[in-house]
Amino acid sequence: MSVLQTAVKLILDRWEASIQNCDVLLKALSDDQLQKEVSPGKNRGVYLLGHLISVHDNMLPLLGFDEKQYPELTKIFIESPDKTIPEIPSVQELRSIWEKQRIYLKAKMDQLKAEDWFERHTAVSEEDFVKEPHRNKLNIILTRTTHLAYHTGQLIYLKQA
Amino acid sequence: MSVLQTAVKLILDRWEASIQNCDVLLKALSDDQLQKEVSPGKNRGVYLLGHLISVHDNMLPLLGFDEKQYPELTKIFIESPDKTIPEIPSVQELRSIWEKQRIYLKAKMDQLKAEDWFERHTAVSEEDFVKEPHRNKLNIILTRTTHLAYHTGQLIYLKQA
Repeated sequence: MSVLQTAVKLILDRWEASIQNCDVLLKALSDDQLQKEVSPGKNRGVYLLGHLISVHDNMLPLLGFDEKQYPELTKIFIESPDKTIPEIPSVQELRSIWEKQRIYLKAKMDQLKAEDWFERHTAVSEEDFVKEPHRNKLNIILTRTTHLAYHTGQLIYLKQA
Repeated sequence: MSVLQTAVKLILDRWEASIQNCDVLLKALSDDQLQKEVSPGKNRGVYLLGHLISVHDNMLPLLGFDEKQYPELTKIFIESPDKTIPEIPSVQELRSIWEKQRIYLKAKMDQLKAEDWFERHTAVSEEDFVKEPHRNKLNIILTRTTHLAYHTGQLIYLKQA
């Protein structure tokens, strides 16, 4: 395994492990638990789940894989705070999307070769990329991994709550 | 910048940004706020701060930099749950250690060359490392970065609590 392949494996493994951690937690939580606020006055579990889905959906265009599959979720779960939009998708719908999304994203990610991950992502121009070569596809995975860990640390509070 | 250097920069930048995020949050919280539970019945802020310090302290031997600087914190903040040990360091002491530790760790990390990060960390044997070359020093940084993000997502709940 080359150093390049090792570096890519590191980051993709960490993403996959973080998705897996969150998935195990989501499956351990009932729909009722996910309807609760993670902490008094804070986001509900269902909102955080929708937020993660919407952020991950946006990885598709950023990585040049596809268009967003659930563009309607952006307004609800990224642009609006929790409890400001009366009608949001149910926990069951979101669980089903989460599952489909995991599989789709992984299939797309598996198609990239190690060196492809060092190409620029679509939110950085060619000119900027020359100066900032770390703004590559791998960096998208890395920043979304810490984002996912951040919110998983919050969702855990729904356990036995 | 070589691909190897880019990969290292990605991960070290993400660690540094995560430390920075947490540091800004800690500075925005009062000592009184840090004494509170992050969510009812959950860990106190002071415990999470001590926990992060102790986990980061353990990075020193793992990365071959030094011995633990605060070995006495392991029992309090890693081996014991919160609120089981009556006498723990004060928020002020922990703030001061956090600050010193940041600077010390960064100085040590800055000394490594890009290729050094692909060496094995001290918790993996030479034999295992041949089969699992991703168990390198860079991976220690990456796993501690997601760990830090996870708990930062919890500490944020102390704001305006």
